[in-house]
Amino acid sequence: MSKGSVVLAYSGGLDTSCILVWLKEQGYDVITFLADIGQDENFEAAREKAQKLGAKKVYIEDLREEFVQDFIWPAVQANAVYEDRYLLGTSVARPCIAQRQVEIARKEGAEYISHGATGKGNDQIRFELTCYALYPEVKPWSMDANLMHISYESGILENPKSHAPADLYLMTKNPQDSPDTPDDLEIEFRNGVPVKVANLKDTTSKTSPLEIFSYLNQIGGKHGVGRIDIVENRFIGMKSRGIYETPGGTILLSAHLDIETFTMDKEVRRIKQGLGIKFSELVYNGFWYSPECEFVRHCIAKSQENVEGKVQLSVYKGHVYILGRESPKSLYNEELVSMDVQGDYDPCDASGFIKINAVRLREHRRMQGFSYSKK
Amino acid sequence: MSKGSVVLAYSGGLDTSCILVWLKEQGYDVITFLADIGQDENFEAAREKAQKLGAKKVYIEDLREEFVQDFIWPAVQANAVYEDRYLLGTSVARPCIAQRQVEIARKEGAEYISHGATGKGNDQIRFELTCYALYPEVKPWSMDANLMHISYESGILENPKSHAPADLYLMTKNPQDSPDTPDDLEIEFRNGVPVKVANLKDTTSKTSPLEIFSYLNQIGGKHGVGRIDIVENRFIGMKSRGIYETPGGTILLSAHLDIETFTMDKEVRRIKQGLGIKFSELVYNGFWYSPECEFVRHCIAKSQENVEGKVQLSVYKGHVYILGRESPKSLYNEELVSMDVQGDYDPCDASGFIKINAVRLREHRRMQGFSYSKK
Amino acid sequence: MSKGSVVLAYSGGLDTSCILVWLKEQGYDVITFLADIGQDENFEAAREKAQKLGAKKVYIEDLREEFVQDFIWPAVQANAVYEDRYLLGTSVARPCIAQRQVEIARKEGAEYISHGATGKGNDQIRFELTCYALYPEVKPWSMDANLMHISYESGILENPKSHAPADLYLMTKNPQDSPDTPDDLEIEFRNGVPVKVANLKDTTSKTSPLEIFSYLNQIGGKHGVGRIDIVENRFIGMKSRGIYETPGGTILLSAHLDIETFTMDKEVRRIKQGLGIKFSELVYNGFWYSPECEFVRHCIAKSQENVEGKVQLSVYKGHVYILGRESPKSLYNEELVSMDVQGDYDPCDASGFIKINAVRLREHRRMQGFSYSKK
Amino acid sequence: MSKGSVVLAYSGGLDTSCILVWLKEQGYDVITFLADIGQDENFEAAREKAQKLGAKKVYIEDLREEFVQDFIWPAVQANAVYEDRYLLGTSVARPCIAQRQVEIARKEGAEYISHGATGKGNDQIRFELTCYALYPEVKPWSMDANLMHISYESGILENPKSHAPADLYLMTKNPQDSPDTPDDLEIEFRNGVPVKVANLKDTTSKTSPLEIFSYLNQIGGKHGVGRIDIVENRFIGMKSRGIYETPGGTILLSAHLDIETFTMDKEVRRIKQGLGIKFSELVYNGFWYSPECEFVRHCIAKSQENVEGKVQLSVYKGHVYILGRESPKSLYNEELVSMDVQGDYDPCDASGFIKINAVRLREHRRMQGFSYSKK
Repeated sequence: MSKGSVVLAYSGGLDTSCILVWLKEQGYDVITFLADIGQDENFEAAREKAQKLGAKKVYIEDLREEFVQDFIWPAVQANAVYEDRYLLGTSVARPCIAQRQVEIARKEGAEYISHGATGKGNDQIRFELTCYALYPEVKPWSMDANLMHISYESGILENPKSHAPADLYLMTKNPQDSPDTPDDLEIEFRNGVPVKVANLKDTTSKTSPLEIFSYLNQIGGKHGVGRIDIVENRFIGMKSRGIYETPGGTILLSAHLDIETFTMDKEVRRIKQGLGIKFSELVYNGFWYSPECEFVRHCIAKSQENVEGKVQLSVYKGHVYILGRESPKSLYNEELVSMDVQGDYDPCDASGFIKINAVRLREHRRMQGFSYSKK
Repeated sequence: MSKGSVVLAYSGGLDTSCILVWLKEQGYDVITFLADIGQDENFEAAREKAQKLGAKKVYIEDLREEFVQDFIWPAVQANAVYEDRYLLGTSVARPCIAQRQVEIARKEGAEYISHGATGKGNDQIRFELTCYALYPEVKPWSMDANLMHISYESGILENPKSHAPADLYLMTKNPQDSPDTPDDLEIEFRNGVPVKVANLKDTTSKTSPLEIFSYLNQIGGKHGVGRIDIVENRFIGMKSRGIYETPGGTILLSAHLDIETFTMDKEVRRIKQGLGIKFSELVYNGFWYSPECEFVRHCIAKSQENVEGKVQLSVYKGHVYILGRESPKSLYNEELVSMDVQGDYDPCDASGFIKINAVRLREHRRMQGFSYSKK
Repeated sequence: MSKGSVVLAYSGGLDTSCILVWLKEQGYDVITFLADIGQDENFEAAREKAQKLGAKKVYIEDLREEFVQDFIWPAVQANAVYEDRYLLGTSVARPCIAQRQVEIARKEGAEYISHGATGKGNDQIRFELTCYALYPEVKPWSMDANLMHISYESGILENPKSHAPADLYLMTKNPQDSPDTPDDLEIEFRNGVPVKVANLKDTTSKTSPLEIFSYLNQIGGKHGVGRIDIVENRFIGMKSRGIYETPGGTILLSAHLDIETFTMDKEVRRIKQGLGIKFSELVYNGFWYSPECEFVRHCIAKSQENVEGKVQLSVYKGHVYILGRESPKSLYNEELVSMDVQGDYDPCDASGFIKINAVRLREHRRMQGFSYSKK
Repeated sequence: MSKGSVVLAYSGGLDTSCILVWLKEQGYDVITFLADIGQDENFEAAREKAQKLGAKKVYIEDLREEFVQDFIWPAVQANAVYEDRYLLGTSVARPCIAQRQVEIARKEGAEYISHGATGKGNDQIRFELTCYALYPEVKPWSMDANLMHISYESGILENPKSHAPADLYLMTKNPQDSPDTPDDLEIEFRNGVPVKVANLKDTTSKTSPLEIFSYLNQIGGKHGVGRIDIVENRFIGMKSRGIYETPGGTILLSAHLDIETFTMDKEVRRIKQGLGIKFSELVYNGFWYSPECEFVRHCIAKSQENVEGKVQLSVYKGHVYILGRESPKSLYNEELVSMDVQGDYDPCDASGFIKINAVRLREHRRMQGFSYSKK
């Protein structure tokens, strides 16, 4: 007699294979789920392995379009960066995978959900918070297989002083080995998300979300863009060292920052900057599916209504250089800013503006003078 | 009979020379003041020119040490970046120059202060706010000479779509022409400010603030680091296009972010991040000498007490790569973070932590379900 | 020949009558505009006076419904309080009046707008910013008539130590003279705005915005609710003493805070609290019609979608006492909170939650111990 | 053989007496600790009871002076209010008691600490976080005795709609039964904390922290000040109903807000307001002894340097009325604010100030016009 069904997030690797076997031994029916979010994986081999190990059912699903559009695009709109540096690649993948896993569990009538994320990391939290948020009655099994080879790799980097080995990186070329000629791109935005990328030197042009993002990953990877080596603060309060590659995300962050500042009102931008920082913390901590993150996403999306236009940039040797930008919605007024044209702007107003701003500063200084004299 | 004395911020250029002559014609005694904050200038030629044009007295002062220590270092501690990109190079120079000019005016009994900063820019505001803050009774003369050659240059860049000409940059090499071998540096911090920089490949080592900063400017410039092309929001509410080079500042920003995150408590960091954004806005807008900026600087300095240690980094082709870091004050606990060691950390606690964090999310979902069922 | 048309915000008082005459003498056609936003005024007398003084046209308009619904309700949703105390009564009236005045000016083809607000206060700023925001080409005439009787009254209160005279207050009874029996009310909210108020002791019940707000003003006034005596910071940076009466607004603030905390998610509330503080500053400073205030209002309105339910309260001797509340959308779970019922809540989870939260604190203490031991 | 020593927070009540007996039965030596923080308690009876039940040692300590000075005063400086309403009475008591309990445990060499705070509330968290923060190796025993009589009382209030019974309140008179004549007080502050309170109608005057606070509790209690009935969000994410009495704290909050706004620069106040909200959340959640709360307290204390002067106020029927204030450090400039005196203030500056502030708003409107015309 089965104890019930478990939907297991299955990678085909040793960790989750062990979990599959263990769950079966405990008397559960195991349904495996493997999401394709663009990782380099032999999906068919994973399917066969799961079946061989006794999975009752195997789901393998391509979530790539959905991942880019529903999870990466909002992060782009938010200029999402955790602790000033980390672009949240893993953090946005977790809720995407887990929400589909919950759908499968509901559909299959499974009461349990299982995964192999490590107990000390953030991924367990992100995974389980998503499951509880979307399926309050569910019971997640968290199994930390903690394989030696992983620990071995971690081992080296766990000393924050050690330099990362050159062969660690998978998505990005070493900048020192990257091409000596830049690629120049034009990225077009509407509502704060990219709708087109064109290579200014050849005829390449992409327009679907997945194609755009994949192409930016390819160009960024080719030029070694988006490598960082950081120490970050995990949600649970310990510091950990992380090395990340985010080639496409890094290009998009630069381009979006540029078109946003070009088209968004200054004060809206200040408020939105605060919301973006909040969004990044929420996503990092696993709260994508929370009332507050839904609220923040709504507000950020609202702020993007006029974020529209084209940014030209150059990608070269690990760095992104903005070259220029244009927009039908720009608040940039060439005539107003020009030093040759007086236009609406009366220099005398500036004096008044400065003097009024100084009222408070002068009073403050006088008060200090008053204090001094009493000493 | 003189109408009184004016202390004029004099550059030796055409603009401020015109102002000097004009002020004399109006019947003022003119004292010129030229600050050396590291710009490339023939100071003696400026002195002679001022004297020839009838300056009553000429001050030329080397403020470089003071500029680095009292103005740049606090910006480094703050990770000061305006609107996510601009490193505030000009913004921090203004209060440094103006505060000395005020000292001279007080010493010389001058009632007037004058400068040639443009009426549409931020520099007039920064200059005048500083003067009013430090010398409430002063009267600033603002003279916008608006020379053609400047306007001409501005003219090209005022179209935000135009790419910057390659020969525009003065401090930084074009990354495409920069060396094919990186320079690897080790920067040592105490109280969040650099106290030593060493080149890991040769025996170069610098320890005074000015030497450290000059050396980082030199290395950064050699590798084309710190160029940005942005549209920014001026204090007065118009957008303007700016192209900046901040080689040393960019290296320091990377290194400081790294050592800070390594040594500072997570939640202190969050609060301090907000203060740093505030600091950047205040400095950009000219409020260095304001009660709120003094308060914020005090708080930020307090947060830096344990920001101590060494960061190793590589500078190459326009980019800064962090390689590793170490600190006697680090809150990084290698044993705690290690996947091999259980230590103090009980995985069962993580489950409790997650479940408590999910209490709210589950209630929210149930309430939505309850609402659904009523429809 | 007329120099053009001016729309003058006309009160019928001595100040604006002087301005009317002066503008006519300067050769302008004067159109007067008087808005009824609930003040105690003889509107017909004002109409006759304006006509007698030579107004070309006289507008008198009842904006009360619009004022309550479009300006006061958003302030209620925001829990709008400036500097922790001031409920922004005047601040929200200004944009309401000025936007209608702009409409009239556009309709009448008038290039000028004029008002009698004092040059040192905030009202001039609020008035003129609204005009420029809605009618960028307009030219406002600001005329500070500064009559003696006003200055006289101001005179007393300008010494912040002087107590306000008892006969100063117009809307509220002195609490010491107010009834010895409380009025108990039930206010019903939907989308964060009141849709009904009922007196629990008689059969009174109001449902239109204007009736609700007027009734709350009446009850609050009867019991001396909403008097404050504060020193506030004006936009232009000087401090001023203000004495305000906001009887209905004070009752609504209490009731709205209660139903909001009852129905809104904790973390949404935190973010919304920050937006409410921002909203208050913007409105105080005159930026109702700004991109950022529109953005903030949109976000706040979004946060109010579930703010629904009934609050029972007692009004007595200058104070509002919340008695109880109920809501179909409450996130309050009586079963979950009960100490008698275990339900979903496992005490063991709390231990895990606490221990994980303490990871960081323990590390911090150990690091300090480590530092100590080295001394 | 003893399993070791436990320091038990002992109240003398049934709950903690049960825990004492149980711990002894488990083989522990029990040291009881009872802190006098001003509660109404028979301390000697508690001592005897503990000894009779087998406590190895009994600590009863008067922490009242320390509680007021080190915990309440910083909360006063912060204007600490959780979720806009709760004055954090319990929240600040917990770290005060727990830090002393930790000292005793260290002194006695006890490895365990125990308390009877309920598992669902915030007090367990506050207690245990403090213990871990100050004594990282300690092991807290959390024992929820959950007595019926408490649950019974909770039972009524757990329905958020039920009105609180009139006899619930212990510190405050029912406002309807309170005196018909107000008490008028003058509170003097230095560094943002009260240094003296004087009754303006009799000769009462208090100057020590404990006396000041006790006297304000007495006066506030006599007039029914400081009762609130709220629903609040606990740290663990559930909503709970709370009824609180904070008579002295409520008077101090009003008075401190007043003297602070009177003496503190406007922009410092804005930043400090944000820090005060942060402080309130941290204290509510139990993080008094955390690096971030220490940092915030330091910053807030810095902001209070000029918060000095006297506030006169009236306490009557549940409400506090500010009457006037004076200060040698005030930034209030009677001459500047006066409408009769022109002084330094040039009305023309205000026009310039407004026009510059409107630059952005006008551009925004023009852009919208441009968009409209394209539709």
